[in-house]
Amino acid sequence: MDKTVLEAMRRRFALRGVAMSDTNRVQALVPDGAVIFPNPRGTAPGLAVEDEAGRVVILLPGVPGEMRGLVTEHVLEFLRARMQTGAPILHRTLRTTGIAESALADCVADVVRAADDVTIAFLPSVTGVDLRVTSWSAQDADAARAALDDVESRLRERAGQYAYGVDREDLAEVVGSRLRADGLTLAVAESCTGGLVCKRLTDVPGSSAFLLAGFVTYANDAKTKFLGVSEQTLEQHGAVSEATALEMLAGARATTAATAGIAVTGIAGPDGGTREKPVGTVWIGVSAHERSSVHLFRFLGERTEIRERAAQAALVMLWNLVREQT
Amino acid sequence: MDKTVLEAMRRRFALRGVAMSDTNRVQALVPDGAVIFPNPRGTAPGLAVEDEAGRVVILLPGVPGEMRGLVTEHVLEFLRARMQTGAPILHRTLRTTGIAESALADCVADVVRAADDVTIAFLPSVTGVDLRVTSWSAQDADAARAALDDVESRLRERAGQYAYGVDREDLAEVVGSRLRADGLTLAVAESCTGGLVCKRLTDVPGSSAFLLAGFVTYANDAKTKFLGVSEQTLEQHGAVSEATALEMLAGARATTAATAGIAVTGIAGPDGGTREKPVGTVWIGVSAHERSSVHLFRFLGERTEIRERAAQAALVMLWNLVREQT
Repeated sequence: MDKTVLEAMRRRFALRGVAMSDTNRVQALVPDGAVIFPNPRGTAPGLAVEDEAGRVVILLPGVPGEMRGLVTEHVLEFLRARMQTGAPILHRTLRTTGIAESALADCVADVVRAADDVTIAFLPSVTGVDLRVTSWSAQDADAARAALDDVESRLRERAGQYAYGVDREDLAEVVGSRLRADGLTLAVAESCTGGLVCKRLTDVPGSSAFLLAGFVTYANDAKTKFLGVSEQTLEQHGAVSEATALEMLAGARATTAATAGIAVTGIAGPDGGTREKPVGTVWIGVSAHERSSVHLFRFLGERTEIRERAAQAALVMLWNLVREQT
Repeated sequence: MDKTVLEAMRRRFALRGVAMSDTNRVQALVPDGAVIFPNPRGTAPGLAVEDEAGRVVILLPGVPGEMRGLVTEHVLEFLRARMQTGAPILHRTLRTTGIAESALADCVADVVRAADDVTIAFLPSVTGVDLRVTSWSAQDADAARAALDDVESRLRERAGQYAYGVDREDLAEVVGSRLRADGLTLAVAESCTGGLVCKRLTDVPGSSAFLLAGFVTYANDAKTKFLGVSEQTLEQHGAVSEATALEMLAGARATTAATAGIAVTGIAGPDGGTREKPVGTVWIGVSAHERSSVHLFRFLGERTEIRERAAQAALVMLWNLVREQT
């Protein structure tokens, strides 16, 4: 029974104001001589046990977030200290969005062909295509990083405006930083994305510095009441139209006095599509100061995919607008 | 060059109004005699190639969503038709939320001990604990389903109010169905969850039937202007307080005339915590008709986790309230 683990568990339960059961106490039992990796995300710690021959068994909790945290913060270092160091394998991922995998492949074809000391993998997802560059055979970490720097800059040159970040950087983070740097404030009006654009922006700490308010206006009444979309516009053009998108955009900015805005209205499906406006039809409008941009998209895929693509497209549009502006 | 695949690809590009490149045409090349699995989610189809000895190679696109779709819709059936049928392995997952893994383990301990023809796995995540029951040795699918039915009903009895669904059912879906069945309409006011509650509710098709509007009011001004939270309340109690949560809740319902409401205000971190109100402090209020419920939570974890836990807790609270009501 490890006192430190038990004590950490007690503090955790006390913080949450929840009683600790006997089943929990069992999680503080550790094998004699084990190395303990403290787990700030859960109750059970990680453990490493080594036998006389130097063979190591590592025991980790199964909750994915806890496991990942322990691996990143403790296990890798523990293993690294025990390993012979050979050629370090380093990755860097260049993130792109708004361009199809095949078109991107055409753009960067000669960089991929010319790369001899690294490999380049295409990793497409609903929100974009990541290019993962891996250095396998550099002599040391500095040489590996230099090789990655070199290929990254050549890929960036080709990918141009479609490249928005590296590694785990999210487009919402990039857009948010830009808005803050430019001193812009933002209002968001969402219909079919139902809060997803706001959710993505607020995933990033510090978004309160620019996000004044978001409106999820699924119902037509809400579009009229909170965003000032006219009943005539809704009747004549429908809720999924350029006119409605523009009035949502103007209304969200006017009511919050924000200097930038996003409006999304569309049909995410599976129902609600018509011959003229099939599922996947989405109008997106963005604006910053006096400039604005509005586009019609026809996204393919299922509801979740259409919503994710629409939220990403809205962020791309705003990003492009604020980049042009300066 | 498979004409059908090429034609499907052409239609896909035409639908999106995007030009098809030569790189795409390559995706319509298939090995002679291959079985083609049409891919409605992307350009490249799935392929199965069989040699004279009956050995099969299956080729699938690497995009996770496309791969999963093809496996579910084509590959499993293709393989099943080629396999000897033995004891079928069937799963069922009972989903719980609002109870810790250890407490749930205590509740269902005797069901787990008594289960001899199935295994029961605990799968904890940020939003709850799933109990996955697996039948390994039943004679046929009917017997397997009967065994799963039996264990599921015993687990449900023990898990009580904490069990909300089976398999892929999401709590937002369960709550939405309940609101629709009860003829309730909903308004949502979110601060620290920043749109996540609305996003979860609108992930489910048909949410427009009950969700009147959502407000992402990060800024105090927005809480006052759109939800009628008084400046005095914000000054005296702070934005993260019971009083503010209740005024957000009342305001969201009043301005939309919704018959149910959710309000969330808290500190998701990493900044903004104080000794008195540390990161993870979240006030959640829910109401339906004349009844309401408000709770203080102290969620542990990082920003994403705190937000996910808070959104889930809000859905749990509303679900409990509307269940009690009838």
